[in-house]
Amino acid sequence: MSIYSPSIEKLIESFERLPSIGHKTATRLAFHMLNLSEEETNEFIGSIENARKNLKYCSICYNISDTDPCEICANSKRDSNIICVVEDVKDIIAMERTHEFKGLYHVLHGTISPMNGIGPEDIKIKELLNRLSNSEIKEVIIATNPRVEGEATAMYLSKLIKPFGIKVSRIAHGIPVGGDLEYTDEITLAKALEGRHEM
Amino acid sequence: MSIYSPSIEKLIESFERLPSIGHKTATRLAFHMLNLSEEETNEFIGSIENARKNLKYCSICYNISDTDPCEICANSKRDSNIICVVEDVKDIIAMERTHEFKGLYHVLHGTISPMNGIGPEDIKIKELLNRLSNSEIKEVIIATNPRVEGEATAMYLSKLIKPFGIKVSRIAHGIPVGGDLEYTDEITLAKALEGRHEM
Repeated sequence: MSIYSPSIEKLIESFERLPSIGHKTATRLAFHMLNLSEEETNEFIGSIENARKNLKYCSICYNISDTDPCEICANSKRDSNIICVVEDVKDIIAMERTHEFKGLYHVLHGTISPMNGIGPEDIKIKELLNRLSNSEIKEVIIATNPRVEGEATAMYLSKLIKPFGIKVSRIAHGIPVGGDLEYTDEITLAKALEGRHEM
Repeated sequence: MSIYSPSIEKLIESFERLPSIGHKTATRLAFHMLNLSEEETNEFIGSIENARKNLKYCSICYNISDTDPCEICANSKRDSNIICVVEDVKDIIAMERTHEFKGLYHVLHGTISPMNGIGPEDIKIKELLNRLSNSEIKEVIIATNPRVEGEATAMYLSKLIKPFGIKVSRIAHGIPVGGDLEYTDEITLAKALEGRHEM
């Protein structure tokens, strides 16, 4: 016999299935839910249902948004001549926080990864190429993560995009600001050296 | 303008309101929810709604349970001559983990705390006294947390219960003072139970 009542047990299990939530936290969250007022519970459930119902992929850049096209694609103040290609929706947020990029985005929703059976047709590459052939893009910045799959995807995209006569660039690799030369791995340091610029 | 779409923003806020969930974890959880299948989402929401709908307080001991009376009160194998008084439903679980206690429980749902404006009438003391006058209880073990409020509540209860001619005991200070029943390991808690003394 389980110690908890079945309904509590099931609620704890539900929370435990979420990422980075262990059994103790799940238990705390479950009891917290039980202590909420009916209004607060409905608000919590409502925010999930609302997000599921309203959020959609932007049909231009595949960002997740309440609107289609998304706020960024629909913003006429943004530079539509330049596209930054990222792996994931969350990478857009990371880029936006820099306040340095004023162009548009394209979310691949993954990287090419033969080891995991993910080929070019499984991510939004075709859609990117369609965008390039139909608009006046001057530059594509590839901002996939600097891992094996991200680099391979960047190389692959670069080969596909260059024939359009569009400039293709890759975000720089180097030592993170505030980082320490002593603790930087040799590949990053070699990339930093290679990408040195005149002062 | 917020970086995220309003529906995502609201979902993140919902998760952020949960205890021990910071902004980064809330963001991760929100995006996790968006990636779930419709079936998984419904299961998650269902477990919350189900818990809210089915769980009730046991009318005898004020444990939270799917049934009334709760599984423990309804279990005829348990010793109905002895009651363990705890502050919180979660403390029952902690006690049950010791496998040392075979009696019944009474959940106070708090402690007397004048600093927070919680008086004896705000917790389930009246209900405990009713139980004592209507049944053949031989001993009451007071297992409130060994903090100022818990000790004060124990003293208060002891004075109220003794006139019934019932033995009143207090779990031993095997638990570190300032600790929390919920997070005490079962051996310490078992020792505390074993070394209880009459009040």
